[in-house]
Amino acid sequence: MEYQPGPGRNQLFVPGPVNVPEEVLRAMNRNNEDYRSPAMPILSKSVLEDVKRIFKTTTATSFIFPTTGTGAWESALTNTLSPRDKILTFRLGQFSLLWVDQMQRLNFDVDVVDVDWGAGVDPAVLRGKLQADYNHEIKAVCVVHNETATGVTNDLAELRSVIDACRHPALLLVDGVSSIGALDFRMDEWKIDVALTGSQKALSLPTGLGIVCASPKALEASKTAKSLRVFFDWNDYLRFYKMGTYWPYTPSSQLLYGLRAALDLIFQEGLDNVIERHSRLGHATRLAVEAWGLKNCTQHPKWVSNTVTAVLVPAHIDSTQIVRQAWKKYNLSLGLGLNKVAGKVFRIGHLGHLNELQLLGALAGVEMVLKDVGYPVKLGSGVAAASAYLMQSTPLIKSRM
Amino acid sequence: MEYQPGPGRNQLFVPGPVNVPEEVLRAMNRNNEDYRSPAMPILSKSVLEDVKRIFKTTTATSFIFPTTGTGAWESALTNTLSPRDKILTFRLGQFSLLWVDQMQRLNFDVDVVDVDWGAGVDPAVLRGKLQADYNHEIKAVCVVHNETATGVTNDLAELRSVIDACRHPALLLVDGVSSIGALDFRMDEWKIDVALTGSQKALSLPTGLGIVCASPKALEASKTAKSLRVFFDWNDYLRFYKMGTYWPYTPSSQLLYGLRAALDLIFQEGLDNVIERHSRLGHATRLAVEAWGLKNCTQHPKWVSNTVTAVLVPAHIDSTQIVRQAWKKYNLSLGLGLNKVAGKVFRIGHLGHLNELQLLGALAGVEMVLKDVGYPVKLGSGVAAASAYLMQSTPLIKSRM
Amino acid sequence: MEYQPGPGRNQLFVPGPVNVPEEVLRAMNRNNEDYRSPAMPILSKSVLEDVKRIFKTTTATSFIFPTTGTGAWESALTNTLSPRDKILTFRLGQFSLLWVDQMQRLNFDVDVVDVDWGAGVDPAVLRGKLQADYNHEIKAVCVVHNETATGVTNDLAELRSVIDACRHPALLLVDGVSSIGALDFRMDEWKIDVALTGSQKALSLPTGLGIVCASPKALEASKTAKSLRVFFDWNDYLRFYKMGTYWPYTPSSQLLYGLRAALDLIFQEGLDNVIERHSRLGHATRLAVEAWGLKNCTQHPKWVSNTVTAVLVPAHIDSTQIVRQAWKKYNLSLGLGLNKVAGKVFRIGHLGHLNELQLLGALAGVEMVLKDVGYPVKLGSGVAAASAYLMQSTPLIKSRM
Amino acid sequence: MEYQPGPGRNQLFVPGPVNVPEEVLRAMNRNNEDYRSPAMPILSKSVLEDVKRIFKTTTATSFIFPTTGTGAWESALTNTLSPRDKILTFRLGQFSLLWVDQMQRLNFDVDVVDVDWGAGVDPAVLRGKLQADYNHEIKAVCVVHNETATGVTNDLAELRSVIDACRHPALLLVDGVSSIGALDFRMDEWKIDVALTGSQKALSLPTGLGIVCASPKALEASKTAKSLRVFFDWNDYLRFYKMGTYWPYTPSSQLLYGLRAALDLIFQEGLDNVIERHSRLGHATRLAVEAWGLKNCTQHPKWVSNTVTAVLVPAHIDSTQIVRQAWKKYNLSLGLGLNKVAGKVFRIGHLGHLNELQLLGALAGVEMVLKDVGYPVKLGSGVAAASAYLMQSTPLIKSRM
Repeated sequence: MEYQPGPGRNQLFVPGPVNVPEEVLRAMNRNNEDYRSPAMPILSKSVLEDVKRIFKTTTATSFIFPTTGTGAWESALTNTLSPRDKILTFRLGQFSLLWVDQMQRLNFDVDVVDVDWGAGVDPAVLRGKLQADYNHEIKAVCVVHNETATGVTNDLAELRSVIDACRHPALLLVDGVSSIGALDFRMDEWKIDVALTGSQKALSLPTGLGIVCASPKALEASKTAKSLRVFFDWNDYLRFYKMGTYWPYTPSSQLLYGLRAALDLIFQEGLDNVIERHSRLGHATRLAVEAWGLKNCTQHPKWVSNTVTAVLVPAHIDSTQIVRQAWKKYNLSLGLGLNKVAGKVFRIGHLGHLNELQLLGALAGVEMVLKDVGYPVKLGSGVAAASAYLMQSTPLIKSRM
Repeated sequence: MEYQPGPGRNQLFVPGPVNVPEEVLRAMNRNNEDYRSPAMPILSKSVLEDVKRIFKTTTATSFIFPTTGTGAWESALTNTLSPRDKILTFRLGQFSLLWVDQMQRLNFDVDVVDVDWGAGVDPAVLRGKLQADYNHEIKAVCVVHNETATGVTNDLAELRSVIDACRHPALLLVDGVSSIGALDFRMDEWKIDVALTGSQKALSLPTGLGIVCASPKALEASKTAKSLRVFFDWNDYLRFYKMGTYWPYTPSSQLLYGLRAALDLIFQEGLDNVIERHSRLGHATRLAVEAWGLKNCTQHPKWVSNTVTAVLVPAHIDSTQIVRQAWKKYNLSLGLGLNKVAGKVFRIGHLGHLNELQLLGALAGVEMVLKDVGYPVKLGSGVAAASAYLMQSTPLIKSRM
Repeated sequence: MEYQPGPGRNQLFVPGPVNVPEEVLRAMNRNNEDYRSPAMPILSKSVLEDVKRIFKTTTATSFIFPTTGTGAWESALTNTLSPRDKILTFRLGQFSLLWVDQMQRLNFDVDVVDVDWGAGVDPAVLRGKLQADYNHEIKAVCVVHNETATGVTNDLAELRSVIDACRHPALLLVDGVSSIGALDFRMDEWKIDVALTGSQKALSLPTGLGIVCASPKALEASKTAKSLRVFFDWNDYLRFYKMGTYWPYTPSSQLLYGLRAALDLIFQEGLDNVIERHSRLGHATRLAVEAWGLKNCTQHPKWVSNTVTAVLVPAHIDSTQIVRQAWKKYNLSLGLGLNKVAGKVFRIGHLGHLNELQLLGALAGVEMVLKDVGYPVKLGSGVAAASAYLMQSTPLIKSRM
Repeated sequence: MEYQPGPGRNQLFVPGPVNVPEEVLRAMNRNNEDYRSPAMPILSKSVLEDVKRIFKTTTATSFIFPTTGTGAWESALTNTLSPRDKILTFRLGQFSLLWVDQMQRLNFDVDVVDVDWGAGVDPAVLRGKLQADYNHEIKAVCVVHNETATGVTNDLAELRSVIDACRHPALLLVDGVSSIGALDFRMDEWKIDVALTGSQKALSLPTGLGIVCASPKALEASKTAKSLRVFFDWNDYLRFYKMGTYWPYTPSSQLLYGLRAALDLIFQEGLDNVIERHSRLGHATRLAVEAWGLKNCTQHPKWVSNTVTAVLVPAHIDSTQIVRQAWKKYNLSLGLGLNKVAGKVFRIGHLGHLNELQLLGALAGVEMVLKDVGYPVKLGSGVAAASAYLMQSTPLIKSRM
């Protein structure tokens, strides 16, 4: 039932799931455990505390759901809002689109601002909407920090300052699925009320954990939120936190041990160094794209993403063909273009447990694929541009100095 | 962060999570994969098809949610019912209690029949309820096949025949979390509309998959069911099944490969042999309990469970002490008594990837624990009773004949 | 190519290879590494130092060969002796027999004292031999500490005192394959010159490491020993120790990480507690054998082994049938009788990463097998005898008090 | 005790140990087994048969020793030769040098032909030596197929034809440690009498297996060879082959299962495709070296190696610094220059489970390192040259066509 593998290691450059470090695979290689034994609370407490450091929060309460990012979204919405509550949000790519779809189907009153795919949220539009909302009917502003479909990173600090300036009491809910743990993210400083991510992204774990942090204000909101919820209900978790047994239903002990190992790796490298590494890899990728004479789907440098780059291909080329060729000939996994940008972009994910040489190998692969499908790239050009930058910016490995 | 282990292997005898076979651990020991690559649909299709064999259905549609049993419950209810729909159900232990709690919080109109903890569903009560329901207001009958808290297995064939005899159109929703794959379960023959289980039980995987099968009638109901749902919505899955890409959001490829391995193990042994093995282990456990002079929490032989035995302890002994002592001295994990039977019972789980000698080691451990806490058991008595039966009933291992 | 496994976990009760703890499996689950990188010496040094603690020596030099016990034997002999050198040794079972065979084929002049299979080395015989050796022609006395074939443990302290009393300068070479790390073993106190073990025994690793410790006197002898050797030559290792790169040829980094984990487990439990646990398991096994009405192959209590028990079966029963039945019906792996005792004994290994309940499960299995093959054992009798003792003697698990 | 890892995956480009495929890691992730159970012979037989396919022999007998290449050498020599037997051999790098050292220390009469480090064996010299040997005193010609220290591959077919032309009866013993399974190797066609390799090279396993194939002529020689040997004695193995139990002492079941998986991977890809892939990677590497303006240590194209490239650095640069910088900054493991070429060459290993993009990533890394240490390389130049060739020569992945 194993799909026959190619020779050598798969180059996994989709923007998630990402490469799992050996340290994490090792930590997860274990039998099941009784999750009601005295051993589990020690582990549980440690990871619940330490995930907050990745979110840069000391005030929030963390929840680790056995679910995916989609479930984490649902948890964020249903715990803080009541049916027909008004949400202001922005649709700028496939993932923000899917979140909007979820909001609508969960029966919220969604004010959707459509944004060009490739652009980010315009603070002016946010300001206008909030200023027009005299009665504070908007209960939540929902923003995808990093739109994985287009490689657009929104400026949360700026959006926060707009909300502050408007003195608007709306909750700020943020999808940090492809950002938290890789991009600069400051839950407390930016007064984010609910932030969430999934284990298979920057944390470099297998899929299966939806990690949610809720500010005191969000927790307060959850007491009166009337959306129906059981599996995703924070209150069940809070009850078990109080009892010290932590889990209202069975967690995956393997993923919890894996999360412990993943957090340890991040803290050993240093969270800010991890973020800096993503910045380095993102910048190098963009230099390669430029060297190839191709355009970034992201329309302005202020929105460029350090976790994923969506590359626009010339009109006569189908980007799907690029992704397929990469996989069939070079064992390279790239991201497809989705929905509005299907066939128009391919995506290079550069997040998680990844280093410079892995990226350069993938960039060399993209060059060959581009030439294979008829785009007249100069082989080595992207690698050269990226290398020149990386050589200068890459520090010695901390533990090997 | 590792809790310091005892010497030797933990004897895991809680009724889930259960021992993960090495074959499954091996299958899961792998990097993440691009779940949109052409490799994933082949694997996905194979497991979606083959889980149905464990449910003994050829007509149902299967769903594999990245969730737990609690999530699988929510999926079963919200996809088939609308708010205020009437549900008839039975509360006979902690897990049926929690399902009732979920039904109520999801805003259904729940008619709860309370049953003694230790007893099973009385078909006569079901008949009475259905006969009284002239207008067919009851939209669903919800039954926990095997109540894990008390070790009670309900007779689904009989309950089905009652519904048939009453010509009642209600859907039959069954929690098979601690039964499917271990006890006799016949989704098609018993005309069950939604059946569900979790990966960490009889399938012997880590936690993380909620497996749900829906009959054509249930699927039909899902088209008009008005309960809000997104993460748990069958329709999203059905849409992706049609496209041949299978997953509306990221699955755990590790768990899917693990599921493939787990199914292969079951089919190699033979599903009916697996069920027979559970019957053997259950019977042996009950013989030991009897030899110890203790009572089974299950009040009548017709309800005894072959996956878990809840043992009543004398009034002067706190069963929690037994569970703690087992863990602290013998590295033996037993199940606590829950809720109404807290302190009164301890539970021996005997399901999943388990054999006769593992069970006998645990029974020997229970004997010593009982004596340690002051119960005057004759050491060896339970093992002797169980062995006498197992020696007669255990077949040669198929592959080694 | 996988041999179809039985349901549940194999009960591995051969006297090696033994169960590998999950901690060790995890540590070994890794890619290869450059063994000339700066990382490897740190690991190498740590395990070379720490294995000495298991041998209870601070004065010896340790060597870790990528080989088995047979290779470790060869290393001990060829590094300390020259062709035609006289060796005094004792043949008391299959493993001492094989060592003698090796000595003879390596062209040493071997004075073999044959001992009844089931008995240990008689100090009086040793004394006689040494006293008769006026000219100190005997260059080495070779003793198997624990003869795995018969379950006989020799009293090394006593043998040492005989050598001392005779003021004989012979080297004392000891096979500790099935003893070191499980039985009381004191290299320095007993002035052992070369002691050796294999990774798959008490250390609970996979096969592949032959661990040898050499006293200063043995090292001195190696400078003039004329036996030809390259792969097993200590001098090559010593040269690389000096350079700080440790390995004259490629080591298995996986096994070194595994060894690190195995040592950590032993030190966490406490080496003396580990030895005490083996004593407990050995004693419990012997009580069971007695309860079954069977005889221990070991002829006198002073020689009983706490790592393996060889059980004599009645003349009309073929012990091979017992081993086969255990494997075919109960997934229980027992040791065969070897050579002179083939068909007459079966062996229960009880060493390495093992606890009380695992042993009791195996003993319950042996009882059923005995009855299966026609021996009139009272089921439960051995388990009862062993349990009564274990209940009294098993301490709380250190980390769970 | 874990050396703190760099971010991302180590780029392992030493010429062994090489990357272990996940399939092999999975196969090895298992508890120990009783190696005397009926399961082990089935596995043993299958790998003993199938390793012969890698050697391209149907007539030889295979041996799998729990040892390294150094031990396999010792097995080849001691089983076929007697002390003072004359060996003709060639010293052309560190590994042939070490083999010569072993021959001398094992007391053979070694006629060593010294060859420039960077050159291969000259057939004319071989011819001269054999023609001068009227009395056929040379009992064995020993050749290292691929000298790993200098990246020199000898032409075995040509050397064989010289021996044939001279009608010389000497045995031909070949070290195929860094060739077999990666380079064109034809044991039967080239009438090689003993060929050997180690598990950590082309087979992509951990270290621990020395694999030796012996021709009928070599087996015949072993009957009269008087070199002392026990651990490495073929006869002990042959005796156990006859009994069908295969192992004179404990094998590593983990490595045997790993070997099974490694062989399966090679056969799935196709052995000739594997060899072609190594040719592709070797050629690409040499193109990169040329583009960098550096010289290959190999002095003539006829000797270039497709498993390792030794790159000469300009006189003012210390190649050790290159290797250290690669490791400290880029998590890239390169091979050091050894002995005569220490400081003068660094080595890029390109063998085993490896593909085009992994190599290109490493080449990009080497470019940056070269520049870091002051060599004026044009970044991207080597990658461009390699890519241009790889793009043309890389086939679609067989299983994904």
